[in-house]
Amino acid sequence: MIKVTVWNENRHEQKNPTVKEIYPKGIHGAIAEFLESAGHDVKTATLDEPQHGLTEEVLNETDVLVWWGHLAHDEVDDEIVNKVYQRVLDGMGLLVLHSGHFSKIFKKLMGTSCDLKWREADEKERIWILNPSHPVANGLGEYIELEKEEMYGEHFDIPAPDDLVFVSWFEGGEVFRSGCAYNRGKGKVFYFRPGHETYPTYYNKDVQTVIKNAVSYLAPSGSQMPVYGNAKPLEAIAVK
Amino acid sequence: MIKVTVWNENRHEQKNPTVKEIYPKGIHGAIAEFLESAGHDVKTATLDEPQHGLTEEVLNETDVLVWWGHLAHDEVDDEIVNKVYQRVLDGMGLLVLHSGHFSKIFKKLMGTSCDLKWREADEKERIWILNPSHPVANGLGEYIELEKEEMYGEHFDIPAPDDLVFVSWFEGGEVFRSGCAYNRGKGKVFYFRPGHETYPTYYNKDVQTVIKNAVSYLAPSGSQMPVYGNAKPLEAIAVK
Amino acid sequence: MIKVTVWNENRHEQKNPTVKEIYPKGIHGAIAEFLESAGHDVKTATLDEPQHGLTEEVLNETDVLVWWGHLAHDEVDDEIVNKVYQRVLDGMGLLVLHSGHFSKIFKKLMGTSCDLKWREADEKERIWILNPSHPVANGLGEYIELEKEEMYGEHFDIPAPDDLVFVSWFEGGEVFRSGCAYNRGKGKVFYFRPGHETYPTYYNKDVQTVIKNAVSYLAPSGSQMPVYGNAKPLEAIAVK
Amino acid sequence: MIKVTVWNENRHEQKNPTVKEIYPKGIHGAIAEFLESAGHDVKTATLDEPQHGLTEEVLNETDVLVWWGHLAHDEVDDEIVNKVYQRVLDGMGLLVLHSGHFSKIFKKLMGTSCDLKWREADEKERIWILNPSHPVANGLGEYIELEKEEMYGEHFDIPAPDDLVFVSWFEGGEVFRSGCAYNRGKGKVFYFRPGHETYPTYYNKDVQTVIKNAVSYLAPSGSQMPVYGNAKPLEAIAVK
Repeated sequence: MIKVTVWNENRHEQKNPTVKEIYPKGIHGAIAEFLESAGHDVKTATLDEPQHGLTEEVLNETDVLVWWGHLAHDEVDDEIVNKVYQRVLDGMGLLVLHSGHFSKIFKKLMGTSCDLKWREADEKERIWILNPSHPVANGLGEYIELEKEEMYGEHFDIPAPDDLVFVSWFEGGEVFRSGCAYNRGKGKVFYFRPGHETYPTYYNKDVQTVIKNAVSYLAPSGSQMPVYGNAKPLEAIAVK
Repeated sequence: MIKVTVWNENRHEQKNPTVKEIYPKGIHGAIAEFLESAGHDVKTATLDEPQHGLTEEVLNETDVLVWWGHLAHDEVDDEIVNKVYQRVLDGMGLLVLHSGHFSKIFKKLMGTSCDLKWREADEKERIWILNPSHPVANGLGEYIELEKEEMYGEHFDIPAPDDLVFVSWFEGGEVFRSGCAYNRGKGKVFYFRPGHETYPTYYNKDVQTVIKNAVSYLAPSGSQMPVYGNAKPLEAIAVK
Repeated sequence: MIKVTVWNENRHEQKNPTVKEIYPKGIHGAIAEFLESAGHDVKTATLDEPQHGLTEEVLNETDVLVWWGHLAHDEVDDEIVNKVYQRVLDGMGLLVLHSGHFSKIFKKLMGTSCDLKWREADEKERIWILNPSHPVANGLGEYIELEKEEMYGEHFDIPAPDDLVFVSWFEGGEVFRSGCAYNRGKGKVFYFRPGHETYPTYYNKDVQTVIKNAVSYLAPSGSQMPVYGNAKPLEAIAVK
Repeated sequence: MIKVTVWNENRHEQKNPTVKEIYPKGIHGAIAEFLESAGHDVKTATLDEPQHGLTEEVLNETDVLVWWGHLAHDEVDDEIVNKVYQRVLDGMGLLVLHSGHFSKIFKKLMGTSCDLKWREADEKERIWILNPSHPVANGLGEYIELEKEEMYGEHFDIPAPDDLVFVSWFEGGEVFRSGCAYNRGKGKVFYFRPGHETYPTYYNKDVQTVIKNAVSYLAPSGSQMPVYGNAKPLEAIAVK
C-alpha cells in the first residue's frame, strides 16, 4: 500500500461551471478515487489550504505526490516548493500532470524552461508507446486515443528524459513527448501530458491505468541515502 | 512468484578442483538456492544438456533467464542463441553475469564487441552505486566491497547503458561499468560484473541482494506486444 | 574534407521506371552530388559490384559510409557486413537511410529487430526537431515538411537512441523516431528516416541539409583506440 | 574562431600565496592563455568586477562561457545567474570546472543538489575515457593521470548525463563521473572535474586538451530557436 498525496490547485473547479460539472469533487477528487480503488492510501491537498496542504508532516508521510496546477503556479510558496524538492531528492516519487509542466517544482527539477506549444481546439490526441517494456505502460495496448484534448507540441523544453515512454500525435499536426521518466537524487519523477480541465480525461480507463502504474513505479526504491561531504580514505594514500 | 531459469556453462566446475570446492553444486546451483529462498520458481540449465537445457518449452516458461558462461561461449548453438534473443525481444528478462559479457547472446543484444581489460590478481573491488533510486540497488549501502575479484577495466565496449547503476573501483587502478540496464524490444537486460569462478562471490550477501533485485526488475512488464508490418491509416489521408 | 562512400543497393532504379526517372543517376548518385558540392571527397558503391564495392581498401579509406538498401538486404554478404561492422567499432561513421533500418549492418549494430509499421499512401510527413542543440539540426527551422512520403510508424524496435533528434508526425495518425544517434565502439551511427524511392525526397533542401550535417557529425573523433585484453596493474596490489 | 569568456571567482588567488604562486595571472588567466593559443577569441571576467564582468553585452557576445568558482558561490548575484541561465537555454555553451559543481548556475541547470564526497589528500586521480568516440576526448590516450588532486567521490547528485565521457579512479578508493555532457534548451553544458586551486592542474597538457575540445564541442549549433506559446493548427481539425 503506497501512501499517495494528490495535490490540486483546485481553482478552475471554483470558477468554471464546465469544470465543476465534469469534476464535481475536483480533479484531485477524481484521481484520488481511482487510486483508492487500486488499494493505495490516498490523501488530497489543495492550494488554498494552509501551507497548500503540504506540511512537513504530510510530505514526510508521502511516498508519491501527484501534482496538477495551471492558473496559479506563482501563488505556490517558494518555501513549500523547496520542501517538496528536498523530499524528491530524498526519495519521494513525483507525478506531474498536464499543465503542471509549468509548475515551480517541475521547472526546478528539470533545470529548463519547460515551455511548449499549445492550442485548445477539441482535437484528437493519440499517445503512442515508445518503450513497450516500461512498467508505466503495463496493460496498455499500442496507443491511447483521446477524442478531444488540448494540444501540447514540440519543442518541449525539457532535458532528454532518462526514459521516453510515450509520444503523442495531434490532429492539428504536432507531436509531443507525453510520458517522460527522470531520476533526481534518490527520487523518481514522471511527467504525463493529458488532462486539460474542460475534458473528462481522468475518467478515461487507459489514462487511469497510466496514473496507477506511475504511482507504483514512482514509489521509493533503491539504496540507502548517499553520504555527502568530507570523506576519509578507504585505502592508504602514498605520501608524495 | 517469478519463473527463473539459471543457465550455467558448468565447465570450470568439472575441470578445476578449486571451483568445484567453492561451488559443489555449480555456480548455477548456488544462485538457484538463494533465488529459491527468495520465493521464486527456479530451474537450472547447463551447456551439456540437450539443447543446452533451453528448449522452446523451457524458454517459453521462463520470465527471467540468468546467464553465466566463460570457457565455451563458442559451443553455444546459434539456433539456441537466436531463440533466447527472440524471447528477450518478446519480453523475457535476461541477467548476464561476469564473463557472460562475451557470450553470443549478450554481444548480439548489444551490437558491439563487449571487449574489456582484465586481470586475475586477487585484487579488491569496490562497487559504487551511481543511481541510488534504481530498484536493482534496493537495500544496499553506499557500495559493495569484495576483498578479492578478477579485475575488469574500461574501456568496456558496450552501448551507453539506458541506466548505469554501478561503477567499480579496482585496487590496481581501473574503473568499470559494473551494473548496466538496457531495454531491448519488450524485454529488459541487466549486466552485473562480479562472479569470477575461483572466488566465493555468489555467497556474498550484497551480491545476492543485487541478483534478487535484478530478477524482480527484469520480470516482464509493459504494454502488449507491438504489431509490426503494413498498417491501415488511422486517419483520412488527402488525395494529392 | 571528409571521405564519404555512398552505398546503394541500386535495384529499384533498374526495375522501376518511376524510380529511374526520379533518380537517373541512382539514389547514390543524387546523394553523392550534393555531398560533393558541400566539399567532401565522395565515392559511390553498389550491391552488384564485386564485394558490393566495399573492399577493405575502400572501407579503410572511408570516414563516413552512407547506406541505402531495401529489396536485397539478404544478398549483402555476411563477410562484408562484418567488415563494415568492425570499421564502425574502429571509428568509421555510418549514416543509415530509410529502409536501411532492415539492413543486416543496422540490425547487427542495434541488437534488436528494427521492425516497424509502414504504409505507402502518398501521405504528409512533418519531421519535428526534439533536440534543437544537436549539430545534425544545424540550420533547420522548427520542422521539415514532406508533402508525400511512405509512412513508418511506432513501435520502432530499436534501442533508445543516445540522442533522439527528430520525431515524425504522419497524416494517417502515426509518429516515428526519425533521427536517432548512437555511439558504437569508437564510431558513431545516425539513422535518418525519409527517402522512399518513389518520391524525390533526396532533392529536398532540408533533407540534404540533414544528410550534410550528419556526415560532419559522424566523421571520426575521440580518443585513441582502446586497448583490450590482459592488463598489468597500474597500482600496487596488496598480497592477501 | 569561438568567442570564449573565462569566468573565475578569483578569490583563492588573492588570499592564498600557494595559489597565487601557481596561478600568478589567476586560474582564469591560465585558462585564457591556452585557449587563445588555440585560436579562440578569449575574454576573462571575475566576481569582483561590476556585474561580475558578465554584463548583458558580454553575455550576448559569448559563444562559450567557462566557469570556475568555489569560496563565494553565494556572492554571485541571482540576477546574473538568471541571465547566464537564459543565455544557455538560448544556445550559449557552458563549461563548468571542478568546484563549480556547487555554483548556482550549475545547480539551476541540473535540478539537483550536485552534492558529492570530497577529500584533500594529495592523491592520485586517473581519468578513464568511457566514450572514446566523443569529440571532447579528441586526441587523448586511454586515460589522463594526475599525480595529486583533490578527491571527488560518488554519489555525485546530478541527473544521469546525456553523455558520460569520463570516470575518475582515486587512490583513496572512490570513483567519480568526471566528464558529463548535457543539453539544456538550445545550449550545451559540460562538467569537467579536475582543477583544485592548490595544484597546477590547468598546466597539464591533457587537461588543456579536454578544455580546448570542450570549447569546440560547446559552441552553438543546431536548429533555429523554437517558438513557444499558442500555435495555429498546421492541419485541419474536424469539428466534433
